[in-house]
Amino acid sequence: MKFATAINQNGVEFVGIIKEEKIVHLSELEKSLYGTNTFPKDMISFIEAGESFLQRVSLLVEEAETKQMINEYSYFLTEIKILSPIPRPQKNIFCIGKNYRDHAIEMGSEKDIPTDLIVFTKAPTTVIASNDRIPNHQEVTNALDYEGELAIVIGKKGTKIRKEEASDYIFGYTIVNDVTARDIQSRHKQYFLGKSLDGTCPIGPWIVEKSEIEDPEALSIETRVNGEVRQQSSTKHFIFSIGEIIEILSKGMTLEPGDIIATGTPAGVGNGFKPPRFLQPNDIVEVTIEKVGVLVNQVSRN
Amino acid sequence: MKFATAINQNGVEFVGIIKEEKIVHLSELEKSLYGTNTFPKDMISFIEAGESFLQRVSLLVEEAETKQMINEYSYFLTEIKILSPIPRPQKNIFCIGKNYRDHAIEMGSEKDIPTDLIVFTKAPTTVIASNDRIPNHQEVTNALDYEGELAIVIGKKGTKIRKEEASDYIFGYTIVNDVTARDIQSRHKQYFLGKSLDGTCPIGPWIVEKSEIEDPEALSIETRVNGEVRQQSSTKHFIFSIGEIIEILSKGMTLEPGDIIATGTPAGVGNGFKPPRFLQPNDIVEVTIEKVGVLVNQVSRN
Repeated sequence: MKFATAINQNGVEFVGIIKEEKIVHLSELEKSLYGTNTFPKDMISFIEAGESFLQRVSLLVEEAETKQMINEYSYFLTEIKILSPIPRPQKNIFCIGKNYRDHAIEMGSEKDIPTDLIVFTKAPTTVIASNDRIPNHQEVTNALDYEGELAIVIGKKGTKIRKEEASDYIFGYTIVNDVTARDIQSRHKQYFLGKSLDGTCPIGPWIVEKSEIEDPEALSIETRVNGEVRQQSSTKHFIFSIGEIIEILSKGMTLEPGDIIATGTPAGVGNGFKPPRFLQPNDIVEVTIEKVGVLVNQVSRN
Repeated sequence: MKFATAINQNGVEFVGIIKEEKIVHLSELEKSLYGTNTFPKDMISFIEAGESFLQRVSLLVEEAETKQMINEYSYFLTEIKILSPIPRPQKNIFCIGKNYRDHAIEMGSEKDIPTDLIVFTKAPTTVIASNDRIPNHQEVTNALDYEGELAIVIGKKGTKIRKEEASDYIFGYTIVNDVTARDIQSRHKQYFLGKSLDGTCPIGPWIVEKSEIEDPEALSIETRVNGEVRQQSSTKHFIFSIGEIIEILSKGMTLEPGDIIATGTPAGVGNGFKPPRFLQPNDIVEVTIEKVGVLVNQVSRN
């Protein structure tokens, strides 16, 4: 299943599943079919409800399909506002730096290929949805850059998770565009400030349940700017695997349901071109990841 | 006023004010005096309620004092569990790196004195209260270090805040011990991982309202380990002032009520000694800041 967060006509947030070009309103469906109103209303509670809850959702949808009731509680994605699947994460987004060899090299040289995981964060105030505008921040940066990335959504609380069992702690996958102000990033040494301008973390459009992706380390990933392919790679080129990332992060730090981990970006960022090709007002950035979806955002005019 | 978060005998969180060796339970007092139950129950809502709300609190306490009712709704701090004033921040804690010249030099050389603000973060899972144990994390680090710091608590949402008006956006001040695993910090390049082991951000014991501190940049700050003075300085030695920190952070990133900004640590950290004097199991670390209080934590045995 693909899980999305949306707001209904009254501005109330709900969690739904994506069926082709529609979103199914799960709690409305629950109410209609079972007469109960027990489904979590936000994605983090939804994730916290655990795997047995996902089975209930699955049964609900199956039953509704059998009874041909799905359409009644579905909305066209064009008619409804889809939010970021986790519109307000409960902590900063974890980001992995230089996790593809070719990107590490384009940012410097062979010496920049990390031997130890590089981790930094983006503030929750950076999060926007697919189709939201990325503020151009022209008053503070001349070097706004894109970074298409596969992101992991954690499903279960855990510390000292071994890489072999990491998959048990994953809820699913989504897409992150780790928009970065390169001038601020390098001027302030630690990456945080250049990574945390408001609206510079498009996430979405939805979360794909892990069971739908047999091998998350064999997905094609592509970023286009105004239709032109800039990044084209596969998650098979990770330096640190998803299991290793989760193992290293959780060695002394507890991971929690709803935590988002962006796994790093391949070569082809604007900063890697000579001269650099940074984002300009009105540019449209599309990040496509196989089996996950497409995250699309336009840079604001003003 | 000094604001603290505590839990009552039934394990329910409440916000109180500190009166000498006691904490006054504000919502119990409100109920008794006014017959209403409108006071926020957690510190972030309390801060969000704004300055006019603080006047209401002030009036309530005055009236209770006049009527000699304060004692009835007060608990000895020795009898009750004081939590960190914001037990679960809604995003990572912002931390300023190398904001005292002498500390920048002890971590390297004159070259390490920053010309631009260094900002990194600690995950919300690091937060513990005064008197809580700091896990020794011996399985992942041999270089656990202390960093006593004055911390700012933001009171009002703001972006592009000028340094001259920064004070309007401050709710108050508290103390942070930015406990750091030096080996992890240097191995992973970006500071985040070495700064985010569980339980490595003691915060507290309370928040002092900004009106009680005439000049936050003239406060003595001292860190003791097992009674021995290790850090002794004054916030007058900041490289970046509080106004500058808030101005730089908020240039492109919105600050929100309840955000915590640790302002950096002076010289005298364990890593600055030759040989280094890192924290050991059972060590007691006390950070004392003039007009704010004392933050005390023991490193766990196991």
